[in-house]
Amino acid sequence: MEEILYGVAYYYEYLPYDRLKEDIEMMKKAGINVVRIAESTWSTYEKNPGDFDFSTVDLVIDEMEKAGIKVIIGTPTYAVPSWLVDMDAEVMVTRKGSGRAIYGMRQSMDITNETYLYHAERVIRKLIERTAYRANVIGFQLDNETKAYGTSGKNVQKAFVEHLKGLFDGDLDKMNAAYGLDYWSNRIDSWENFPDVNGTINGSLGAAFEEYQRLLVDDFLQWQADIVNEYRREDQFLTQNFDFEWRGYSYGVQPEVNHYKASKAITIAGCDIYHPTQDQLTGKEIAFCGDSTRSLKKDNYLVLETEAQGFPQWTPFRNQLLLQAYSHLASGANMVMYWHWHSIHNACESYWRGLLSHDFKENGTYREAVTVGNEWKELSSKLVNLKKHNKVALVVSNEALTALKWFPVDLNAAFQSSITYNDIVLAYYTQLYNLNIECDIVTPDMEGWTDYEILVVPALYSASDETYQELAAFVEKGGKLLSTFKTAVANEHLKISYEGTPKGLQETFGMQYNQFAIPSKTRLMSEYFTFEPDAEVQGFMELLEPDGATVLATYDHAPGDRDVAITVNEHGKGKAIYIGCMMDDKSFNQVILKIFTEQFDYPLSEYAFPIIVKKGINQSGNELTYIFNYSETEMAVASPTEGTSLREKRSVAKDESLVINPWDLIILENEQQ
Amino acid sequence: MEEILYGVAYYYEYLPYDRLKEDIEMMKKAGINVVRIAESTWSTYEKNPGDFDFSTVDLVIDEMEKAGIKVIIGTPTYAVPSWLVDMDAEVMVTRKGSGRAIYGMRQSMDITNETYLYHAERVIRKLIERTAYRANVIGFQLDNETKAYGTSGKNVQKAFVEHLKGLFDGDLDKMNAAYGLDYWSNRIDSWENFPDVNGTINGSLGAAFEEYQRLLVDDFLQWQADIVNEYRREDQFLTQNFDFEWRGYSYGVQPEVNHYKASKAITIAGCDIYHPTQDQLTGKEIAFCGDSTRSLKKDNYLVLETEAQGFPQWTPFRNQLLLQAYSHLASGANMVMYWHWHSIHNACESYWRGLLSHDFKENGTYREAVTVGNEWKELSSKLVNLKKHNKVALVVSNEALTALKWFPVDLNAAFQSSITYNDIVLAYYTQLYNLNIECDIVTPDMEGWTDYEILVVPALYSASDETYQELAAFVEKGGKLLSTFKTAVANEHLKISYEGTPKGLQETFGMQYNQFAIPSKTRLMSEYFTFEPDAEVQGFMELLEPDGATVLATYDHAPGDRDVAITVNEHGKGKAIYIGCMMDDKSFNQVILKIFTEQFDYPLSEYAFPIIVKKGINQSGNELTYIFNYSETEMAVASPTEGTSLREKRSVAKDESLVINPWDLIILENEQQ
Amino acid sequence: MEEILYGVAYYYEYLPYDRLKEDIEMMKKAGINVVRIAESTWSTYEKNPGDFDFSTVDLVIDEMEKAGIKVIIGTPTYAVPSWLVDMDAEVMVTRKGSGRAIYGMRQSMDITNETYLYHAERVIRKLIERTAYRANVIGFQLDNETKAYGTSGKNVQKAFVEHLKGLFDGDLDKMNAAYGLDYWSNRIDSWENFPDVNGTINGSLGAAFEEYQRLLVDDFLQWQADIVNEYRREDQFLTQNFDFEWRGYSYGVQPEVNHYKASKAITIAGCDIYHPTQDQLTGKEIAFCGDSTRSLKKDNYLVLETEAQGFPQWTPFRNQLLLQAYSHLASGANMVMYWHWHSIHNACESYWRGLLSHDFKENGTYREAVTVGNEWKELSSKLVNLKKHNKVALVVSNEALTALKWFPVDLNAAFQSSITYNDIVLAYYTQLYNLNIECDIVTPDMEGWTDYEILVVPALYSASDETYQELAAFVEKGGKLLSTFKTAVANEHLKISYEGTPKGLQETFGMQYNQFAIPSKTRLMSEYFTFEPDAEVQGFMELLEPDGATVLATYDHAPGDRDVAITVNEHGKGKAIYIGCMMDDKSFNQVILKIFTEQFDYPLSEYAFPIIVKKGINQSGNELTYIFNYSETEMAVASPTEGTSLREKRSVAKDESLVINPWDLIILENEQQ
Repeated sequence: MEEILYGVAYYYEYLPYDRLKEDIEMMKKAGINVVRIAESTWSTYEKNPGDFDFSTVDLVIDEMEKAGIKVIIGTPTYAVPSWLVDMDAEVMVTRKGSGRAIYGMRQSMDITNETYLYHAERVIRKLIERTAYRANVIGFQLDNETKAYGTSGKNVQKAFVEHLKGLFDGDLDKMNAAYGLDYWSNRIDSWENFPDVNGTINGSLGAAFEEYQRLLVDDFLQWQADIVNEYRREDQFLTQNFDFEWRGYSYGVQPEVNHYKASKAITIAGCDIYHPTQDQLTGKEIAFCGDSTRSLKKDNYLVLETEAQGFPQWTPFRNQLLLQAYSHLASGANMVMYWHWHSIHNACESYWRGLLSHDFKENGTYREAVTVGNEWKELSSKLVNLKKHNKVALVVSNEALTALKWFPVDLNAAFQSSITYNDIVLAYYTQLYNLNIECDIVTPDMEGWTDYEILVVPALYSASDETYQELAAFVEKGGKLLSTFKTAVANEHLKISYEGTPKGLQETFGMQYNQFAIPSKTRLMSEYFTFEPDAEVQGFMELLEPDGATVLATYDHAPGDRDVAITVNEHGKGKAIYIGCMMDDKSFNQVILKIFTEQFDYPLSEYAFPIIVKKGINQSGNELTYIFNYSETEMAVASPTEGTSLREKRSVAKDESLVINPWDLIILENEQQ
Repeated sequence: MEEILYGVAYYYEYLPYDRLKEDIEMMKKAGINVVRIAESTWSTYEKNPGDFDFSTVDLVIDEMEKAGIKVIIGTPTYAVPSWLVDMDAEVMVTRKGSGRAIYGMRQSMDITNETYLYHAERVIRKLIERTAYRANVIGFQLDNETKAYGTSGKNVQKAFVEHLKGLFDGDLDKMNAAYGLDYWSNRIDSWENFPDVNGTINGSLGAAFEEYQRLLVDDFLQWQADIVNEYRREDQFLTQNFDFEWRGYSYGVQPEVNHYKASKAITIAGCDIYHPTQDQLTGKEIAFCGDSTRSLKKDNYLVLETEAQGFPQWTPFRNQLLLQAYSHLASGANMVMYWHWHSIHNACESYWRGLLSHDFKENGTYREAVTVGNEWKELSSKLVNLKKHNKVALVVSNEALTALKWFPVDLNAAFQSSITYNDIVLAYYTQLYNLNIECDIVTPDMEGWTDYEILVVPALYSASDETYQELAAFVEKGGKLLSTFKTAVANEHLKISYEGTPKGLQETFGMQYNQFAIPSKTRLMSEYFTFEPDAEVQGFMELLEPDGATVLATYDHAPGDRDVAITVNEHGKGKAIYIGCMMDDKSFNQVILKIFTEQFDYPLSEYAFPIIVKKGINQSGNELTYIFNYSETEMAVASPTEGTSLREKRSVAKDESLVINPWDLIILENEQQ
Repeated sequence: MEEILYGVAYYYEYLPYDRLKEDIEMMKKAGINVVRIAESTWSTYEKNPGDFDFSTVDLVIDEMEKAGIKVIIGTPTYAVPSWLVDMDAEVMVTRKGSGRAIYGMRQSMDITNETYLYHAERVIRKLIERTAYRANVIGFQLDNETKAYGTSGKNVQKAFVEHLKGLFDGDLDKMNAAYGLDYWSNRIDSWENFPDVNGTINGSLGAAFEEYQRLLVDDFLQWQADIVNEYRREDQFLTQNFDFEWRGYSYGVQPEVNHYKASKAITIAGCDIYHPTQDQLTGKEIAFCGDSTRSLKKDNYLVLETEAQGFPQWTPFRNQLLLQAYSHLASGANMVMYWHWHSIHNACESYWRGLLSHDFKENGTYREAVTVGNEWKELSSKLVNLKKHNKVALVVSNEALTALKWFPVDLNAAFQSSITYNDIVLAYYTQLYNLNIECDIVTPDMEGWTDYEILVVPALYSASDETYQELAAFVEKGGKLLSTFKTAVANEHLKISYEGTPKGLQETFGMQYNQFAIPSKTRLMSEYFTFEPDAEVQGFMELLEPDGATVLATYDHAPGDRDVAITVNEHGKGKAIYIGCMMDDKSFNQVILKIFTEQFDYPLSEYAFPIIVKKGINQSGNELTYIFNYSETEMAVASPTEGTSLREKRSVAKDESLVINPWDLIILENEQQ
């Protein structure tokens, strides 16, 4: 990337009147230098089957070109025209529990349906052919937040059975044994009469199907990439806007897509990041999603969507839009693109507001974007292509996420549970983030996923033996491993280890366990940590039995009074720490802090949240230090380095007191680095 | 009406043994002078298709006639016989989400189904023909709490598409533009293959369909009226028991029926009113539903159903049945009819108890009805036909209600919301009620809806330009307008204004806004009002930008620190106040009180809830003043007038101290008025 | 039974590797002397239709025989092979609301489907023929936790209509009258076109259908019994593991099975008992389910399933497994069998853990079982066949439970309710249990159900006139009756009494009522009881009108200020107490304590929960007294008797102070008894 891209999704087709020129003028004023278009309006481009009209696309590209604004073209396949469903009702997705979807909502088609694929390919070819040669078209987004949408109609299940045949060499006994299907008379002894997988109560089979649905996403994106590649210039990128688990905002690992595998189809990683603002703005979601997306290709990435005003609950406080924008860059983003330019006047996202409100006039948020855009025009060459070299990686896994959905951590006999995989992952990420421990986010699928000094591995419930062996080898060779309860419980088929847990890592941790409980008034005791008298075990606890490891903490109330909570073990050249339970925030914070400083010798920042420090090397080879103030209070920090304060345009001495306004930041460039 | 009617719904057909004569004797003792019969028991009158037997109807009319009790005949069409569904399965309603209903529950047929209409017409004709000539039959109720019941089967949707064709002159581009259907590829470019409207995510289209369903109710009632009118005598009335949104009691505007339009088919407005009692009895629901029903034809109305004992939670405290009965009259009712006479021994409303318990014996509630009935026999000529001349009207709208269901006020990114249209309407009505500001309840559909001194217009989210122009003209000509956030946002197609908000009223209010937020620890500040230090903005806030208006209150916390909360504007000969947010009760109470007294010069009563004062002119031209004590504490008030205390039968001097018992009332008649 | 059986469910077929011999060795060490096998794995025994392979059954029986371990064979019919559903889709159950179930979950077949029955009979015959002759096979379990699973497909409804024809002698008028079907036009005037009962809103018809579904369970078990009886030896028993309402543990009366009627098919009563542990272990569920199951045949019973480790929330504290095991014996159990031996490595009950964890190693819980098993080997002859002779019976009823589901106690106008039948039953049982009042649990179906000194009859909402007459006669003849609100309201068709309530018992109680309410700040007042000032009526209250009875307590707040809460009446030779409301725990405890001691002259134990005392006569004719400490605190009690402390093996004098450890017990044998 040659410059920081600052952009918006732009929907000329949604405008209540033609104001393209006024819009462009306002974009220019705000330093907007790129727009994403075309991904949402298939039915406008093909009003009736085969009847194509891309005049609005042409017009927008033309005018943007004149204005020097770049364009990203999205393939318009995530929302299908009604005539397509009228043509073939099976275009609509069939889902577990709810059956065939009804037309209306986007992202509700069967991405394997032949009719859909035929017509999708045609409209993609028409659109890309018409736009790929344009000078200001810099890249393509394939589809939009692609998933399999739960597709599980008969055709999909038939293909899944073929997939299983491949997986088990056509041997049903092998599958029955691997999945434990004798249980409750669920054996399958005929490939032909494979029961509807949507009814299964077998977590191994169910998780295998969800894994298969993720593979469909990889295939679908690759299929689109292959089409677009026939037209794409060398200098044009391919991307996808990967999104994350949705809890009203981006929250942790995306269950339905393996971002790493899916990203093989594209040339640059992209994502959507939506997050709380106002009093809840912490930067954590920006950092998590950024660290995750940057790690996909170990390179800079694009934020293809983030909020401008968003929903009323997100109307940003003064300076927050600016703080947010820089936060992305500090994580390694080369583009920040708002969803979207103008608020929409009809349909279901009218109050997911863009940079402009419904009246298209300047407003407080737009005016802040003007500040950002103009700062970036000036600082772009300093800020773009920031590189990270983190010592720490957080290890996450789609498979473990799915497994812990089928086998929840704290499932009780009323078949209720409250703790999910992402809860645990985010709890650990939050501790790292708050302590300013920057990390990559990797999965065992990735090449070189253990090439770090420290690995943090929360709740890696299931994986192949090979993965567990790689973790063992990591420690053996000198790595520092921090892992938690529910790690290394089952194999890749979710069969729970019958040779003890942590599976394959008992020597590494110098510990094993075979009982666990939901705590009941259980306190956490330690001579190593100094817990408060009310330090409390929460949610789940494993009763560890050290066998070589050193005990760091114990439980004090039955059934835990027999057993151990936290252990550390020197093994080979490395060290392995295991935390067997969840606990109150204060205790947890102390545990992570002491482990990183004392056990792992990690050089902690002297500041912690709400002061967030992020570092990287810019393309001039200088170290940039971003210091953010995520609070409504003015904060003073001692400068961690000498250098230039880029936004203030002045020199700063090491240890000089720097005052940071509420919801503001300072960027230091240190040329000695 | 010549006298106050005091009545019960009477179900001879449900009796476990024949006790008609005993029942009539007990009715006479209680002053019951009217019964409603026949609306629920089609299957009893027509056990098999075409096999009619109205002997129980004849018998009840005969015996009531002998006893001097009037009869209202209900057409028995809201609950269909099982044989009708056996004959044509499509008689059952098909609903969004749940598909075709299963037989059993009442009010679950498709009111447009031809088989239903054929058989309904036949049973109506048979019944009305047989009863219309009877001397003591004073009127007819058409069907019962009629709605479209969500009917949306293929036939209904086909008719809806024809309706749309008419609305848009057959021009699909016009419809696509009006509804914004380019969004998410939802364009419709063929009338023939119109997608199932139940799947739509387009609020404009969805709301248009709900509007169409309300039209079906109007048509259905008119169709029944036309049939009954063939038999009806001049002196017999037609009515309907309109009901309200149901939250376990009558709560605000009925979403599924436009009462005003539907009431064109009838000659006198009627309604159901159910409300909390015991410690929660406030009279508010009686007043709201009464003001609403009275305003339909600007005339007295009938309470066709209200609770006697009702559910166990409603078993009235001593004197509450009496207090309730008079409360209806004070709102302008000419009839109070209990649902129902005797508690039912089987089926799903057995614990929705009538005046008599299951044992048919006298009980505490019945004994209180005896008091009411005998007082009314004596006071009837003083109380009947009470007329109101209110200066204030509350403006409500089915369209705004539906719009704010599709676009909730406080929708967030988890697609959750908690504030509904009726919440806002009732919040404003409650303030008026508690301050003894009597009002009419009108809609922009009504003739002369702006013919008031003061209009209170909460959250009129969507309306035609004409409506907004009428509001502007109202102020121009001297009217006093109080309006709120989410008023004048969209046009009648729910397209949000792209020319600023409040749409068409920016000059009227001297103010505009284009940003809004969900408040986060935001306080309300004012030099005009004297708010408590903890005065808090709640739920939703618009960031007003005055342009001529005077600021009455501001916000003190970001994002609101830039902006204004409440404005007042002198415009033309009138005055327009805009309240941009919700707030805590105490602040809200002060705001309304100061606006009415200081800004609107409204002569407030010196009493407020739990003392409720209602006035009107009786048929002798005298002013009646009802003073209610809605509390369990004895209260003393200074008499607001000289006159006769009707229930006490004594003269009262102005300012004389009147003592009102717990849950009791005093009625003053002032002949000087 | 000749000895106490200590057992486990054993699933050789689920083992991830063959470890039968190791398992048996560990069982022997723990004193396990019986296993239950075969009930879950039909698809393993018949991989394809007609293709039988019982080799694993043979092997397990062989090896157990060698080890001297007994075997119970379960018929494998509760979980069907997928090929059976492939053969006939209607094998899957069709349920109200959700339609045809999808294959996967167990207990989801239509137990009346002919295909199912044909194949079930074949596999039962094959299995029983092969195992019945084996010496160590001591009995058979028919199916598993059998229910009708809500079956209500067309075939079932057709049969139900035939059932109704029989019930009403083919007379539809009789049925319409009995069920009150004139209501809402629900009359049925043709047997041929009977509407789908799943749609009914008529509680009488709905409850009749649920009663019919319970009859299907009786028939199904009898059908299985008849098959097994063709093969069974005299010394082999037939049993069923009856379970209870499930609220994450066994909670009160099973709604879907009439245990008493269903138990006619078997020779010894059996049950599943699951209960909270850790800090929530009270023994109450063990006692309730035990008293209930023992009363079915007035004999000792089998606990066919109870938890070892269970879900993580149930991981027992130290000594709790032992406490639990003895608790069953003290209620009259002759067997305690854990579900199950080893934790399962796949599928949906993996975390419903057995005695062994997934690693098959010894663990804390297993080691405690070793203690239990070895104590029992020694004490078996003293403990087995304990007989009870309780003076008190708690009367429960499936019909009342179903009735109060259709007509909830505290139903309000929002159609919400929170109080269920089992809530009330358990509230009363809890009081008895905590006060150490041992009781039988009977139903009006049973022979001799009134043959007690004291009957406690909570909320017997509906029953036949005969039942009410039997209660009246019980008091007449000298019985002491304690009954509550919602008793004797309706007849067996759920028609509410029109001759007053309590129906048929007004003289017995010297009281009647015809109004009731949900209390609103209502206090309970009494000169007899000494209530706290904050004593509060909760949930529901009837306004009693004594007619001969003595008032024990009254209400102090409207509407209750008119009326009475608790009455006592001397009638005939007996006494009848009626409690008209629910109340706070402290008041309730006092009410029950005073009624039993002062009104009923019941000799209360001087100890109360957490000290639980249970008694019985062992086969030597000696009285055993179990004294349990259900707390984490050491407790001292004065020995209630002289005798031998069996576990301590020492003599104890009367009144000697006995110290009981946390979660521990003492057993005294008194030879003088």
